[in-house]
Amino acid sequence: MRVKARVRTRSRVKPSARARPARRARVTAPPLPVTTWIARKRDGDVLDDDAIRALISGAADGRVPDYQLAALLMAIVWRGLSPGELGTWLDAMVASGDRMRLAAIPGVKVDKHSTGGVGDKISLCLAPLVAACGVPVPMMSGRALGHTGGTLDKLESIPGFRTALEPRAFARVLARAGLVLAGQSARLAPADRILYALRDATATVESIPLIASSILSKKIAEGTDALLMDVKVGRGAFLPERSRARELARTLVALGSRAGLRVVALLTAMEQPIGNAIGNACELAEAIDVLRGGGPADTRALTVRFGAEMLILGKRARDLADGTRQIEAAIGSGAGLEKLRLCVRLQGGDVRVIDEPQRLPRAPHQAVIQAPRAGFVTSLDAGALGRAATRLGAGRARKEDRVDAGVGIALQAKQGDAVQRGAPLAVVTYTERARFEAVRAAIEDSFTLGATRPRAQPLVLERLG
Amino acid sequence: MRVKARVRTRSRVKPSARARPARRARVTAPPLPVTTWIARKRDGDVLDDDAIRALISGAADGRVPDYQLAALLMAIVWRGLSPGELGTWLDAMVASGDRMRLAAIPGVKVDKHSTGGVGDKISLCLAPLVAACGVPVPMMSGRALGHTGGTLDKLESIPGFRTALEPRAFARVLARAGLVLAGQSARLAPADRILYALRDATATVESIPLIASSILSKKIAEGTDALLMDVKVGRGAFLPERSRARELARTLVALGSRAGLRVVALLTAMEQPIGNAIGNACELAEAIDVLRGGGPADTRALTVRFGAEMLILGKRARDLADGTRQIEAAIGSGAGLEKLRLCVRLQGGDVRVIDEPQRLPRAPHQAVIQAPRAGFVTSLDAGALGRAATRLGAGRARKEDRVDAGVGIALQAKQGDAVQRGAPLAVVTYTERARFEAVRAAIEDSFTLGATRPRAQPLVLERLG
Repeated sequence: MRVKARVRTRSRVKPSARARPARRARVTAPPLPVTTWIARKRDGDVLDDDAIRALISGAADGRVPDYQLAALLMAIVWRGLSPGELGTWLDAMVASGDRMRLAAIPGVKVDKHSTGGVGDKISLCLAPLVAACGVPVPMMSGRALGHTGGTLDKLESIPGFRTALEPRAFARVLARAGLVLAGQSARLAPADRILYALRDATATVESIPLIASSILSKKIAEGTDALLMDVKVGRGAFLPERSRARELARTLVALGSRAGLRVVALLTAMEQPIGNAIGNACELAEAIDVLRGGGPADTRALTVRFGAEMLILGKRARDLADGTRQIEAAIGSGAGLEKLRLCVRLQGGDVRVIDEPQRLPRAPHQAVIQAPRAGFVTSLDAGALGRAATRLGAGRARKEDRVDAGVGIALQAKQGDAVQRGAPLAVVTYTERARFEAVRAAIEDSFTLGATRPRAQPLVLERLG
Repeated sequence: MRVKARVRTRSRVKPSARARPARRARVTAPPLPVTTWIARKRDGDVLDDDAIRALISGAADGRVPDYQLAALLMAIVWRGLSPGELGTWLDAMVASGDRMRLAAIPGVKVDKHSTGGVGDKISLCLAPLVAACGVPVPMMSGRALGHTGGTLDKLESIPGFRTALEPRAFARVLARAGLVLAGQSARLAPADRILYALRDATATVESIPLIASSILSKKIAEGTDALLMDVKVGRGAFLPERSRARELARTLVALGSRAGLRVVALLTAMEQPIGNAIGNACELAEAIDVLRGGGPADTRALTVRFGAEMLILGKRARDLADGTRQIEAAIGSGAGLEKLRLCVRLQGGDVRVIDEPQRLPRAPHQAVIQAPRAGFVTSLDAGALGRAATRLGAGRARKEDRVDAGVGIALQAKQGDAVQRGAPLAVVTYTERARFEAVRAAIEDSFTLGATRPRAQPLVLERLG
């Protein structure tokens, strides 16, 4: 049994000063220190809302130093965030900056975001087609990261094209063209930028709640009403394992719903690259091919499926069949191509590249990778090809690096294709011979040839939301 | 089956430039980045020796930024370090600075270190007694930390006493007095200081391998041959749980053995404070009482047991009985007290405090905590009392704070004691009334009174090594 002891003074303290009301007085509890919050997360406890808000605003304004954030982030990789914590975390990330106001633009705005793929030029043909069908697409994209390409880098292969748009310019292009293809404004979710840079340097990127809140904070701040998430699965994906990809997809759908953003997530295959082109200018050219009714079958199929989903999210299609029909019509009529042309013009780009793709940058040298013998391409390593393209200059080893728009890999055979001995497997376009030499073996090794034709794999594996 | 594809160029690359020897050439692998090492530890993999050495030397010289170290430390709290990793980690910490050379001083040098207790003044009476028995004691101690006291702060309540000794002064005092009581030199294990400050701010202190390597790096650099580790267990201890304390003790013994340092670890009870005094000057006075043959029973018993263990480690006693007899003789003869006097004199302190403890600082005000009713003290919360003493000014809330040598808590009753209603439980000596008011209730609450006398608990729970 615990009892209260009484107190009595001796010597210099006046008895009157210890009168009853003061007796139980305690000093005001000091604000909880960051170390205590880190310790709670380290021990698997739940952080309260005030702690999370103070941590995120402290990340944005520098009051919480990087080293404390880094330890916290690793503790989150370890212990995770509960749905409640994650909701508060997301709200605080959004609240750390401005929020776009797109309500004046009629219609349900729908964006699409991918976890990052190799040869993934879908956004470039998808956004104009969805816009052509009457659903506004406010699209803020990223740059190449690791072995995956970035939509911004691909767009910037168009001479003059501006991806850095002020909020008003962003809204104006969207209102006029029905789509806008821009980079993230520094004023949207600044806490995410700071945390992302830290995560990148501290091996704390691969945490489902941190990935989900990073993606959605930017999308909510961007002002979109709904989001189609393309969560890649397979060896070319950021999260290769299907179970992890599914967990991310589920988290995105639930977290979006909690924050008032409708999210549909598709798990799609990223074993081999999408389409044939890997690079910046060459991927843009391939996307234009799709808008002209051509392009590789997988690229076209993904574009149509994603477009149909976005039309449903945007309340312009009843179902997938209806959405598919509308997207195919926008390809057939050239309406999608016209939307891209309008967007390029409004964002300052040279529209001639659309009809004359030879105006796009192209590196001076080419080399062909040949099949050493006849056989079927049984697999094609998207991750290895993505890393090879990055080292050729299509991506960045460090954030400060400039990309080389004109380098790339053009696949001449894909999974399931039969090749003869000596037939070209890929054509590599490069600027520096040393870089080509450094990746040649990796490109060769990314092709596996076998005696029997592999079974075709589905492109869309699961749908959530 | 994976096959190698052949390569053929077209256009501007000369065929001769792709001659056989160059074909398989790869660019030299870049040095492994810190992020990769953090990711490995995050994933539970083992770091190789070169990575560990680069991380520790990078911590010491600033090449590895704090935020990367912080993430790594949290990953180590999560995943631990293997015995091999830990050995390399310790070696690298020692190699980050100077190492004392004490070989010229004859005898097996034995130090004692505690994980930190409340009222723990054992070092102050133990070191002189062991030295008096012929075993040199090179003791580098720390300052108050959290709710536990620090030997340095207690020593500095002696006017003029210098704890900051240059390596040569350290060795000279040890050679002349047979003991030296100093603070850690900034030149010993500097990586530990940097990592410790970071751990303190990032809730990564409580990791067994990090604690063990931190302690032993300083002891090995200090030049001792053997170490008696006092690992506290209970609610006043840094690691309250016995299983965790035992794990630390085992790690210390094994890691020390691997590094050539003989370590014996005792698990000792830290449920209630050691002795009656909690504070700086008052604890020093209590230690002097022990050297004079007095002092509280628990303080005396621990001193004798630790002393006997250190004499065995120092090869001056055959066994505990022999060691106990020698330590008790050094108390009875006053030889221990004379050793302390010599040490205080050599380190610049006012030796008069030894015979006239009233010369030690004492805060101006006192208050008595009374028992609210009769009963047995069934428990006494060392952690709560330690925090109360810290808030009175005996310890530090932040590293920059100065300690108040004259404040303290003098326990008037301990576990198992019977008290009458109104009898004093503790006398609090304080400087600032507001601070006293802020801790009064906590001191009251730290006493639990019950109807039956609790069973006496052993002081030493286990011995390892």
